[in-house]
Amino acid sequence: TDVFDASEHPHRRLNPLTGQWVLVSPHRAKRPWQGADESQAVAPDQPYDSECFLCAGNTRVSGDVNPAYTGTYVFNNDHAALMPDTPSASSEGTSSEGSSLFQFQSVQGLSRVVCFSPDHSKTLPELPLSAITEVVNTWDSQIEELGQRFLWVQAFENKGAIMGCSQPHPHGQIWANSFLPNEVAVKDQHQRDYFQRYGRPLLLDYVNSELADGSRTVVETEHWLAVVPYWAAWPFETLLLPKTQIRRMSELSVVQREDLALALKKLTSRYDNLFQCPFPYSMGWHFAPFFEHSDTDSHDLDHWQLHALFYPPLLRSASVKKFMVGYEMLAESQRDLTPEQAAERLRAVSDVHYREANM
Amino acid sequence: TDVFDASEHPHRRLNPLTGQWVLVSPHRAKRPWQGADESQAVAPDQPYDSECFLCAGNTRVSGDVNPAYTGTYVFNNDHAALMPDTPSASSEGTSSEGSSLFQFQSVQGLSRVVCFSPDHSKTLPELPLSAITEVVNTWDSQIEELGQRFLWVQAFENKGAIMGCSQPHPHGQIWANSFLPNEVAVKDQHQRDYFQRYGRPLLLDYVNSELADGSRTVVETEHWLAVVPYWAAWPFETLLLPKTQIRRMSELSVVQREDLALALKKLTSRYDNLFQCPFPYSMGWHFAPFFEHSDTDSHDLDHWQLHALFYPPLLRSASVKKFMVGYEMLAESQRDLTPEQAAERLRAVSDVHYREANM
Ligand SMILES: O=P(O)(O)O[C@H]1O[C@H](CO)[C@@H](O)[C@H](O)[C@H]1O
Ligand SMILES: O=P(O)(O)O[C@H]1O[C@H](CO)[C@@H](O)[C@H](O)[C@H]1O
Repeated sequence: TDVFDASEHPHRRLNPLTGQWVLVSPHRAKRPWQGADESQAVAPDQPYDSECFLCAGNTRVSGDVNPAYTGTYVFNNDHAALMPDTPSASSEGTSSEGSSLFQFQSVQGLSRVVCFSPDHSKTLPELPLSAITEVVNTWDSQIEELGQRFLWVQAFENKGAIMGCSQPHPHGQIWANSFLPNEVAVKDQHQRDYFQRYGRPLLLDYVNSELADGSRTVVETEHWLAVVPYWAAWPFETLLLPKTQIRRMSELSVVQREDLALALKKLTSRYDNLFQCPFPYSMGWHFAPFFEHSDTDSHDLDHWQLHALFYPPLLRSASVKKFMVGYEMLAESQRDLTPEQAAERLRAVSDVHYREANM
Repeated sequence: TDVFDASEHPHRRLNPLTGQWVLVSPHRAKRPWQGADESQAVAPDQPYDSECFLCAGNTRVSGDVNPAYTGTYVFNNDHAALMPDTPSASSEGTSSEGSSLFQFQSVQGLSRVVCFSPDHSKTLPELPLSAITEVVNTWDSQIEELGQRFLWVQAFENKGAIMGCSQPHPHGQIWANSFLPNEVAVKDQHQRDYFQRYGRPLLLDYVNSELADGSRTVVETEHWLAVVPYWAAWPFETLLLPKTQIRRMSELSVVQREDLALALKKLTSRYDNLFQCPFPYSMGWHFAPFFEHSDTDSHDLDHWQLHALFYPPLLRSASVKKFMVGYEMLAESQRDLTPEQAAERLRAVSDVHYREANM
């Protein structure tokens, strides 16, 4: 037939937050796979590991001893990519020829580790709701504290060795920056432009459209929605956002925080259930930057909507990932199934974790 | 001391081709590594493998039989991400609310495989110069042929299982596109702006600056220069470009093609010698698009300079790569050694391949 069908035919979709397109090749998931198999992630089964640098009471590489913590535990990264006291410097005004092909700026910042709980064996989906709420509150208080000194605070989690995570103990990281990183700067600009044009936050319009449509919904709770976004690049990428406007985590009510814990538990349980493994991903939060530390005039926040992004690498099974290489690095992200197909598969599995369901 | 030192202190550098910054954290290479070890790539040692889909005379998954080819061999990808006959369609004008959060466009294209030589065991650095020149000429003729129908032709190679390469037989791919992919579109814009402002191609100014400086040079031949670019994101990323303006490969003289083969052999030999392994990477070519197939007014090519990009993932050893995850995916690329340090390490090894030097 010669009628275009988005579930069959190659097409591109636009990410309105970044202006980047994604190539969607729905038929491509059918090809056989003879490439690399990753070693499959296995969940640790002991709540304490005497060799772990993050377990309570243990000694880290730095020689510091972790306290006997019972909830979340935050400490400064012993090998931070950023330092608070880097001397200021930049290339501005140093170019002699008018052209500026060697531009740099020195940066300040710091980097912390957030242990999610003392339990070595329990990742986010397996923690009780109260413990996940504590993780949410820890993200929030860290972001607010660091936001008093830094323009941007990136809270994120690398989960699984396949995502470069060097410690199996469930934890995330927080990197504070004196600058607005690329990804946040471009999203600030696109949300600002949309707000100026339509008078409404882009992501609030988006969440309403997705609530009305439903085909990309993965988890919906009273206050939160998780979808495979229309423009998802990674096979099972999701976007988690509140249904009403929230510019930063600090604006969330107690009820909205508890409901976020529920949404996180359901979403990450569906992930783990998809291939019955601790589903690897990088996740993190985007929200209104602390513009008071920038030299821009406009400190408006109203174009921003708080949201979490989950970028999981797996495509075919617990051990076969999507390779974002070659064409993707040089030209454009490319996906092998539609976002609607991915959402359908995540909806088809239970939102109760397979290790909890078996109890 | 409180004087900024780019080889010690965290800073950002600007990629003038894309407008993206890269976070450089020179001190970070010192941290110990306890994360994932990849299985180390091993070079096949037999020139023919009866199980290989790409060896001459063998039968592919599709049932097609490869001819008894003796040089390069090109065929259509049996599982192409793009098809030449996808029906046209786009979201333009379909939005009812004025906002356009669901934008798509159907795309046409095709995808080919380029076997570099019949020898199953020899990757680019181990091929004789005449065979590498034939690879160059094949890239060129494919690009020119497909450029008669398509706006963009991406020639690339994914080398190594770690880069999603599913067939060990040395080969590359060519994806032709009815559209300008993100990365090419943004580089077109930045080169165009620079040309309008300074009247010279950005990359020609750049190559001259690097020739004058030398600290990032990895390989220099009569007509070509390979540097770790000032704004490199991957640890040992390189940019390979001609010293005079060349807008597309078709403009290269016979001498410049042979010299390109030499530069490619030296560069990839240095790569393999760094960790004494078949050094994995994704590489590919960027050059002036075939604007005659676009609906833009300006078909100017003069702001463009042909160049190859090498994105190799390894960081510490033949089995420990740099993970571009978490902070990198959500915020900004980050590197653990300076481009100057990387170039120095690549210069410190021989430009004769370790398997050829032992003969
Ligand atoms: O076509 P191949 O080699 O099977 O596939 C490889 O290269 C493609 C183009 O870069 C990627 O989209 C795939 O993810 C990767 O596995
Ligand atoms: O800090 P870690 O967990 O040792 O390191 C990991 O996360 C960082 C932030 O995303 C990355 O820069 C590293 O490449 C990755 O291995």
